[in-house]
Amino acid sequence: MPYGDQEAGLASDRLDSGLLSPVRAGTPVEAATSDRAWLQAMLDAEAALVRAQAALGTVPPSAAETVARLARAERLDLRGLALAARETANPVVGLVQALTRVVAAEDPAAAEFVHRGSTSQDILDTGAMLVARRALLLVRADLARTARALARLAGEHRDSVMPGRTLALQAVPVTFGLKAAGWRELVLDADRRLARVLDGGLPVSLGGAAGTLAGYLEYARIDGGVDGPDAGEYLDRLVTEFAARTGLARPVLPWHTLRTPVADLAAALAFAAGALGKIAVDVQSLARTEVAEVTEPQAPGRGGSSAMPHKRNPVLSTLMRSAALQVPALASALTQCMLAEDERSAGAWHAEWLLLRECLRLVGGAAHTAAELAEGLRARPERMRANLALTGSRMASERVAAVLAPLLGKAPAKQLLTRATALAEHTGRPLAEVLAEQPELHGRTDAAGLAPLCDPETYTGAAGLLVDRALAEPGR
Amino acid sequence: MPYGDQEAGLASDRLDSGLLSPVRAGTPVEAATSDRAWLQAMLDAEAALVRAQAALGTVPPSAAETVARLARAERLDLRGLALAARETANPVVGLVQALTRVVAAEDPAAAEFVHRGSTSQDILDTGAMLVARRALLLVRADLARTARALARLAGEHRDSVMPGRTLALQAVPVTFGLKAAGWRELVLDADRRLARVLDGGLPVSLGGAAGTLAGYLEYARIDGGVDGPDAGEYLDRLVTEFAARTGLARPVLPWHTLRTPVADLAAALAFAAGALGKIAVDVQSLARTEVAEVTEPQAPGRGGSSAMPHKRNPVLSTLMRSAALQVPALASALTQCMLAEDERSAGAWHAEWLLLRECLRLVGGAAHTAAELAEGLRARPERMRANLALTGSRMASERVAAVLAPLLGKAPAKQLLTRATALAEHTGRPLAEVLAEQPELHGRTDAAGLAPLCDPETYTGAAGLLVDRALAEPGR
Amino acid sequence: MPYGDQEAGLASDRLDSGLLSPVRAGTPVEAATSDRAWLQAMLDAEAALVRAQAALGTVPPSAAETVARLARAERLDLRGLALAARETANPVVGLVQALTRVVAAEDPAAAEFVHRGSTSQDILDTGAMLVARRALLLVRADLARTARALARLAGEHRDSVMPGRTLALQAVPVTFGLKAAGWRELVLDADRRLARVLDGGLPVSLGGAAGTLAGYLEYARIDGGVDGPDAGEYLDRLVTEFAARTGLARPVLPWHTLRTPVADLAAALAFAAGALGKIAVDVQSLARTEVAEVTEPQAPGRGGSSAMPHKRNPVLSTLMRSAALQVPALASALTQCMLAEDERSAGAWHAEWLLLRECLRLVGGAAHTAAELAEGLRARPERMRANLALTGSRMASERVAAVLAPLLGKAPAKQLLTRATALAEHTGRPLAEVLAEQPELHGRTDAAGLAPLCDPETYTGAAGLLVDRALAEPGR
Amino acid sequence: MPYGDQEAGLASDRLDSGLLSPVRAGTPVEAATSDRAWLQAMLDAEAALVRAQAALGTVPPSAAETVARLARAERLDLRGLALAARETANPVVGLVQALTRVVAAEDPAAAEFVHRGSTSQDILDTGAMLVARRALLLVRADLARTARALARLAGEHRDSVMPGRTLALQAVPVTFGLKAAGWRELVLDADRRLARVLDGGLPVSLGGAAGTLAGYLEYARIDGGVDGPDAGEYLDRLVTEFAARTGLARPVLPWHTLRTPVADLAAALAFAAGALGKIAVDVQSLARTEVAEVTEPQAPGRGGSSAMPHKRNPVLSTLMRSAALQVPALASALTQCMLAEDERSAGAWHAEWLLLRECLRLVGGAAHTAAELAEGLRARPERMRANLALTGSRMASERVAAVLAPLLGKAPAKQLLTRATALAEHTGRPLAEVLAEQPELHGRTDAAGLAPLCDPETYTGAAGLLVDRALAEPGR
Repeated sequence: MPYGDQEAGLASDRLDSGLLSPVRAGTPVEAATSDRAWLQAMLDAEAALVRAQAALGTVPPSAAETVARLARAERLDLRGLALAARETANPVVGLVQALTRVVAAEDPAAAEFVHRGSTSQDILDTGAMLVARRALLLVRADLARTARALARLAGEHRDSVMPGRTLALQAVPVTFGLKAAGWRELVLDADRRLARVLDGGLPVSLGGAAGTLAGYLEYARIDGGVDGPDAGEYLDRLVTEFAARTGLARPVLPWHTLRTPVADLAAALAFAAGALGKIAVDVQSLARTEVAEVTEPQAPGRGGSSAMPHKRNPVLSTLMRSAALQVPALASALTQCMLAEDERSAGAWHAEWLLLRECLRLVGGAAHTAAELAEGLRARPERMRANLALTGSRMASERVAAVLAPLLGKAPAKQLLTRATALAEHTGRPLAEVLAEQPELHGRTDAAGLAPLCDPETYTGAAGLLVDRALAEPGR
Repeated sequence: MPYGDQEAGLASDRLDSGLLSPVRAGTPVEAATSDRAWLQAMLDAEAALVRAQAALGTVPPSAAETVARLARAERLDLRGLALAARETANPVVGLVQALTRVVAAEDPAAAEFVHRGSTSQDILDTGAMLVARRALLLVRADLARTARALARLAGEHRDSVMPGRTLALQAVPVTFGLKAAGWRELVLDADRRLARVLDGGLPVSLGGAAGTLAGYLEYARIDGGVDGPDAGEYLDRLVTEFAARTGLARPVLPWHTLRTPVADLAAALAFAAGALGKIAVDVQSLARTEVAEVTEPQAPGRGGSSAMPHKRNPVLSTLMRSAALQVPALASALTQCMLAEDERSAGAWHAEWLLLRECLRLVGGAAHTAAELAEGLRARPERMRANLALTGSRMASERVAAVLAPLLGKAPAKQLLTRATALAEHTGRPLAEVLAEQPELHGRTDAAGLAPLCDPETYTGAAGLLVDRALAEPGR
Repeated sequence: MPYGDQEAGLASDRLDSGLLSPVRAGTPVEAATSDRAWLQAMLDAEAALVRAQAALGTVPPSAAETVARLARAERLDLRGLALAARETANPVVGLVQALTRVVAAEDPAAAEFVHRGSTSQDILDTGAMLVARRALLLVRADLARTARALARLAGEHRDSVMPGRTLALQAVPVTFGLKAAGWRELVLDADRRLARVLDGGLPVSLGGAAGTLAGYLEYARIDGGVDGPDAGEYLDRLVTEFAARTGLARPVLPWHTLRTPVADLAAALAFAAGALGKIAVDVQSLARTEVAEVTEPQAPGRGGSSAMPHKRNPVLSTLMRSAALQVPALASALTQCMLAEDERSAGAWHAEWLLLRECLRLVGGAAHTAAELAEGLRARPERMRANLALTGSRMASERVAAVLAPLLGKAPAKQLLTRATALAEHTGRPLAEVLAEQPELHGRTDAAGLAPLCDPETYTGAAGLLVDRALAEPGR
Repeated sequence: MPYGDQEAGLASDRLDSGLLSPVRAGTPVEAATSDRAWLQAMLDAEAALVRAQAALGTVPPSAAETVARLARAERLDLRGLALAARETANPVVGLVQALTRVVAAEDPAAAEFVHRGSTSQDILDTGAMLVARRALLLVRADLARTARALARLAGEHRDSVMPGRTLALQAVPVTFGLKAAGWRELVLDADRRLARVLDGGLPVSLGGAAGTLAGYLEYARIDGGVDGPDAGEYLDRLVTEFAARTGLARPVLPWHTLRTPVADLAAALAFAAGALGKIAVDVQSLARTEVAEVTEPQAPGRGGSSAMPHKRNPVLSTLMRSAALQVPALASALTQCMLAEDERSAGAWHAEWLLLRECLRLVGGAAHTAAELAEGLRARPERMRANLALTGSRMASERVAAVLAPLLGKAPAKQLLTRATALAEHTGRPLAEVLAEQPELHGRTDAAGLAPLCDPETYTGAAGLLVDRALAEPGR
């Protein structure tokens, strides 16, 4: 039953418009993971299967091509399949019936070879892996953009001194370059984990009703005379051909209830969400009105408030953080679904679909947003310097303590510094002056000698070297 | 911009058809929580606000009616709003612009009063509460149906003896009535928690830009001469009128970052999902081929397998369990969003929308499914009795031990029973006979005296009384 | 076997010292939820049960008293019980054996009445409810302290103006009083949810082997001649007596796999953690070096850094936030455990114990910390005012826009403000002056008329009124 | 202050005895992750650091050896450190003070070099990685045992036919060998993911106060004359020496708020828990009284019930499942902690410690339990065969349908089978006979020809071949 007009008329009632998920609304990953894309991916699985069987001589090539050609989402009634899925707990039973009808309308003989020997889960899982692969490629492209932009920021601001902040307070100086290099490192880590999943971690599903491939083998016997002794070779070739035609990996065993691929996806996506979320919370920390060390990229109309004309909200980091607050929980439910009983689970499998889709979408949207953020983020070294002045020489007190320790002992030096920094803060006088007046230091050093030690701008340790080392590590 | 033809042509690409979530596909809650419904709820909030302001004399009544009349989702471009939301991190900024345009096209003066003094979060949060209320009413209706059906089952099978199972093994006898009464109790518990949320737990959001209602008061001053001394009364009346027009509750304080209503929804929905999930896992346990003590309601085509003609899968419990495996994780992320910093959060709020919608939908779908399951579930007492025979008198060994304890001492009695039940199992002889032969019991009792003690069918304890007591508790 | 010397010698190896959980180390809730406390609670359950049976005449009063008197944790080998629990999957089997030995050593006849008719889960669940009740009372006391302190802060700072912050940026003014009143409201909400659980939500567990109380009834028949017709009354009285002796509630049904009490605890505790976490993130936001509007209570040595002498870290809010980041996830796993199959679950029950204990402990520790934080938190109005000056009149732009809207139309007024605030920010000139020069306003208003509108300190809307209303709501 | 007698006297009050977590009580991982072990690991980090500094010539070798020799947990007051941690939000500040005192008592000069240039997080994070490595090695050893035992089971039962079960119902035949091979595959997958973490994923932490290593470099300048030009080399060598002395990896950058190592641990541990949980739910499914196809290993006293003498509960799988229900949630909270703001987080870091420890412990306990389960699991082929007979030829209906499809068409064949299997079930007659009587098949086939097709025992598809292929994959 083709998608009808009456359906189009009602379509707006059921639009997944992205209204509640702006982090991904309109981004490429949204289309790549839509219900329509999922349906097409399952049809791609049917097409690849029948072609693989044709390659092994158990399905007539012309029948295979007819099935494959007609396996198009636009020929099926997506909503009808969804509704029918309530009766069978998955949409593939209806999909097979509908595809069979479409093929039979053109070539009844070819219709016999639809879904031959197969089972719902083989098709849905293979389709899910196809959707995941497509989505992951989009995510990786955006992570690569993000990493490149962060590398540029890290290089440009290698020596832009700013306050390092620990437990919400200014601690010792860092550089913005080091911060950007750290963000890039996390993005590269995320990319590596996704690459690992893409490299062999997304297999076809080929198990038949209970993971023995009995149905596939039976039809191979009937259709192609594949006998007992040949079954092993047929099995290996079928998996190979199916994998080749989908671009997916070959599994060691049917994985209906061995959910490694889904758990790996969940873990890698949660990691990616967390990596992008870390960047987001840092950008928000630095974008605060009182801090103002970075500004998100501007665009006409962006960041506007419905009430306050003066505001330019950091919307990109807000969207990224919104994704990072959701994905770990969704991913944990996917991991929990590893507890799938028996040969196929009554519920644990069915719980995966929506969770996986949302993980892919949220991460895809966040990565797309991150690329835009990183490419347009403006660092403001003058604000960094001004903020550094708020704590001033106290930010170098760790260094002064280190220098005084050999003179006074570690503990007395720290006590002296605690006292002197408090006095300097209270009186507003330079720390070097205050220190020089302390009796313990009489004759041992003076304000002139102490002044350079008290300058926070020169107390950035290995920040520059660390940026160099991190950037030497290749991205993509 | 009204929803255009070109959009309809593309609609199928973005359909949320329910393909990946059969537990709710086509159920009433799906439409009640759609993007479209959410948009309409936000427009309902705008309409209620402007009418409330009119009731207080600060907006001309005719302007209010014009705004309210035009605040219809079908007049706005849902997808366009979703896309625009990426620029402002929420869809209300665009919604206000679009609604203002629609109103201005008919009455420019009335357009001045759209969203007067308001802020995005007031509208979105009020809209979310409206959606939640509508969804919860649907859920409660289905829970009531479920509870009634379970009451009937509990009554009918008050004395249907079956094996009680603990840690996967047959333990002592129970009745199916007691099991059904327990399920009902959980459903009533879920219903009570949802009722508690509906009873005052879903407030309007009315805070203005940062929770001081400053914008509302300023416009009241300008538009209605509401002065300092009157502000308190105005404030109270505005909340009251707004609440009355939405049917929602009055909050104590603006709750932009005091997320009690959302956390309460999350908790109640997770509870409901868990309650229905418990029923699902029990039904699956009893529906196993080897157990076969219950059968899910049949319908033509239901439960069919794509590969195995003989199967009738327990699809309703499968769908319910799939929801129960998702909701607690989604709900935990909602609870985590209570950590919303400042007057309005940059991300924690934005993370809530999708999570809340899916919780509502999954629970709504599961409740609808549960009603169907409970109303059609068939218990098979003959299978229960047959299974009871597998363990037979050993299921009454606890009772025999109790009777023998005063004769032999508790520990020796238990040891005797352990030995005798093993022997009875090994030889296939009746436990009473085996026991009677044991030297410890010589002269103290005989097989005839022991036989009634060894009959598991009479060892159901207070099962029937408990059913009576549970059913005496009123449902809805 | 009493707790031996050789065990004490090894004790330090197995100390739960709190090293990894400073939020609760040494707080009262830690002791109340220790393994030792849990063991004692289970023994209290055994004692209450045997006394209840004695009250009903089925156990000799002296035997009951002997059992109850000897049911002391210090008489048992805690570690030995823990190790033995691996063989039976729960610690009660071993506890019953050990307690029986202890009693038998003094009075062999009394030993017969230990755990009479009972089952492991009745004892462990009743013990868990006792532990939970004791912990919740501690939590509520600390929440009450916190709420009182916050009420004081809200009253004292009812009119302390500070920048309201939304999406990380200064938005419009608020008052610190309003913020503190909001925190208090959340704390009261948490307290109400815990109170609700304490009020009837923590029942005794009394079901026997599979929830039919068959064992209890059988012994009542043997020991007390309680016959069929009397069973209902006996049942009701046994529950009543057991509940009375523990201070716990009467359940409607045995709840071995109807986990309402645990799910309710999880929800209320996650809520409390979130409420305290919200306070923590706000305090951290305000304590930032660049903001410095609040200071955590000081104590000698507190907040010290191992490296930086000048720092005073906001450790109390850090500890509170660390709990809030853990509890929702732990609680979601508890909710997931509602999917307990059959009459008693093989794993879902066993997963609850540690999760519940940590939820209780983390929330108890966070509440204790919150009380200290709230009682000593110092607000700094002078810093609030200084920060307000950073955005200055732009923070009142919403008000100016409201006033100009009737003159110019809403949209033109907002555009004018957007332009003028940008110009004022760029040039550093007062917004009123800049505005007065705009051609649209010529002859309609002047700088003198605009100046008061541009003063952020007077633009706090209903903040004061809201504080009054919130504080009028009674705490505890 | 050494661990004193008064502490030992109170130790039992604070024992983490494992009472609430039998899955790990007394297993090797428990001791490896105890508070005491954690403290020692942090001291090991201090020792490795000072020795690394000595190797680079900035600390006198004898001082380094003194510090390293005295860095023993038994010399410190564990409980005292835990209590002190509330004041500084982490236990390292107190640890450094205590260790300094211990060293100073023996050699005041050496005490100057304790924690030189370091920061709390470097020590705690390095200690955590040491604990994790030790625990992971234990886990891997147990997974290896488990995999070997499962390989043996898979080989022995390569052809033991049993009912495959999908959606709770018997579907088509499988073999127990295939099931065991699948379990092994999951265990190997888990092991590979843990191995990946062990191989370079557990780095030392070396960043100093805010990740610039400024303190380390400053002391190197003072103590060793390491100047600007040499700083890069010093930096590289310090990391190398520190890593070499701990056996941990070298990080690319300091990772105080780049939490890749912790997120990776969380993901790998959640995977392992899920893999073992899958085995557990399968064992429970097969151990049910009505199924009885496997028996857990017996041991004296194991699996005993406190009430029912005849039961032998499947306690090992119960314990494993209890871990699998907890770890994914704990791990998701760890992933969420990736959102660590600034240079060091005020809470996200502190939330990790307990979560990580419990993940390590639960997985370690579950793996230890799994090894015991796998090594002693008894499969019962006679029960498998008996259960297969329950569905009988209907389990081969997929095959019969495949054979009849070319004769009748796919859909008519399936309809015929549906009808015939129902009739065979209803009448209890052999399916082959019933089929042979159907008019559609008259003259095309007969009962004798159909009978072998209807024999489920020969319909195991590629099960044996899959076992061979899976076992050809090397374990460890």
